[in-house]
Amino acid sequence: MSSFDSAAVKEYLTELQDLIVARLEQVDGKPFRRDSWSRPQGVGISCILEEGNVLERGGVAFSHVTGDRMPPSATAQRPELAGRRWEALGVSLVLHPRNPYAPTAHANVRMFVATKDGEAPVFWFGGSMDMTPYYGFEEDAVHFHQACKNSLAPFGDDLYLRFKKWCDEYFFLKHRNEQRGIGGIFFDDLSEPDFATAFAIQQSVGDHFLSAYVPILERRMNMPYGERERDFQLYRRGRYVEFNLVIDRGTIFGLHSNGRTESILMSMPPLVKWRYDWHPEPGTPEVELYEKFLQPKDWL
Amino acid sequence: MSSFDSAAVKEYLTELQDLIVARLEQVDGKPFRRDSWSRPQGVGISCILEEGNVLERGGVAFSHVTGDRMPPSATAQRPELAGRRWEALGVSLVLHPRNPYAPTAHANVRMFVATKDGEAPVFWFGGSMDMTPYYGFEEDAVHFHQACKNSLAPFGDDLYLRFKKWCDEYFFLKHRNEQRGIGGIFFDDLSEPDFATAFAIQQSVGDHFLSAYVPILERRMNMPYGERERDFQLYRRGRYVEFNLVIDRGTIFGLHSNGRTESILMSMPPLVKWRYDWHPEPGTPEVELYEKFLQPKDWL
Repeated sequence: MSSFDSAAVKEYLTELQDLIVARLEQVDGKPFRRDSWSRPQGVGISCILEEGNVLERGGVAFSHVTGDRMPPSATAQRPELAGRRWEALGVSLVLHPRNPYAPTAHANVRMFVATKDGEAPVFWFGGSMDMTPYYGFEEDAVHFHQACKNSLAPFGDDLYLRFKKWCDEYFFLKHRNEQRGIGGIFFDDLSEPDFATAFAIQQSVGDHFLSAYVPILERRMNMPYGERERDFQLYRRGRYVEFNLVIDRGTIFGLHSNGRTESILMSMPPLVKWRYDWHPEPGTPEVELYEKFLQPKDWL
Repeated sequence: MSSFDSAAVKEYLTELQDLIVARLEQVDGKPFRRDSWSRPQGVGISCILEEGNVLERGGVAFSHVTGDRMPPSATAQRPELAGRRWEALGVSLVLHPRNPYAPTAHANVRMFVATKDGEAPVFWFGGSMDMTPYYGFEEDAVHFHQACKNSLAPFGDDLYLRFKKWCDEYFFLKHRNEQRGIGGIFFDDLSEPDFATAFAIQQSVGDHFLSAYVPILERRMNMPYGERERDFQLYRRGRYVEFNLVIDRGTIFGLHSNGRTESILMSMPPLVKWRYDWHPEPGTPEVELYEKFLQPKDWL
């Protein structure tokens, strides 16, 4: 394992947060609230926009937290690290546009460090970006996946396919037998071949988020829609809640480990509906979402 | 351990479901949908009312399911049962009225049986009823707890206090440091002193639900309210979602074990809001809910 530079990662992450928030403010026209917090476990800056012109709710959060003992959920793949002290820093975002034709977006870049007296620290990176449409557009799916692929291209031809598959596997609601959305990329446990390369991959993923998502947001955010589309969006947002509260490892770990609840739950949609055993009619755009878009698929 | 009669329990439970649904239909004026289902793991009848006159969403579910191996979550207290085949039958209900002055109600009565070739089967009962107001009324809390106490009075003076405490401990959102509601009663692992007594306790709890809740529903369901109260109700419903998806053992076990998702998630509210770091103003009825009602308290 090579040495690492956590100050450089922190500097990158806070700059990334600023960049993303500034660009989203341009698109939306309304400023984010910037909420800095400090607790015994760490510090963070939660940037949140609610009732924006374009974003009904969106959060872009930086946090840098530490703990005395690695949680079991984080050491399932690395039992040799159980019980170590840990440090985690990352930027995580979820954007819920108001327009049902504009997809919800999620991205996350993070670094973990596990330390123990008398032994070398162990670091690894993780990251993801994925998109959850309510109405499917093939050109949007292609654009998003192309940007995902571009972000990884400098680091080897196989990374995109590996990380795309990982994303399809991770963002899956087993209790619904449904994908969360059209996927993207997801990776974890990345420390090879060295710190510089792994950090460069994380940076490239983070740097590509805006170009992956904002053009899609801009072409959908002003499309006319009616009650039917709004209703379907609110219903489908229920799946987002189910995924994050029942399945998402980061959310569950955060809520069970005395994390900062309001920052963790910035991912929740602003308004959500549930109804019993509902299914869209055959031949509608709603059923096309399930049949064509919520399926693992090679979009490129 | 005494012998048990699962046919008698099943007959009681399906009759209880019919009784509760019939009474709620009287109050609401709109009929429930009765949805019978059958799967390899078992059978059930899900009764659901959506967009009723009084109930915005309400579900009363009977199910009788079996499994090959006791789940770890069910044997944490009884490791000697790990790996046994199991059978579970119960009635579970959650009612979400539209009027914000009317509380959400939950009740559940269930029996578990763990079997193994060549050994005697082991049974136990569980049950609960609890109430989650959006606006607090002392007379409602007293009425509900008095009915809870009455349901247990024939079986010993200490049961109500034990089961009330258990309820306060169980319906607690650690990540919010909040009680879910004003509590009620909760019990599990009940097989003493014998089948007949444990079954009688379950029956008494089930039989008291309507008299505990319906008078409260009837006196609140037509109270005038405005956007402010509706908004607070939708916000507080988010806590109900968080509890059921993050904490509730039955919900999590069901979703992770290939249970019938639509029946399990009948507990979800029909419409829910999340917003960032929101707190009610001092001196308002909303802050009174937190300070006076969402606190473990002797109501009687």
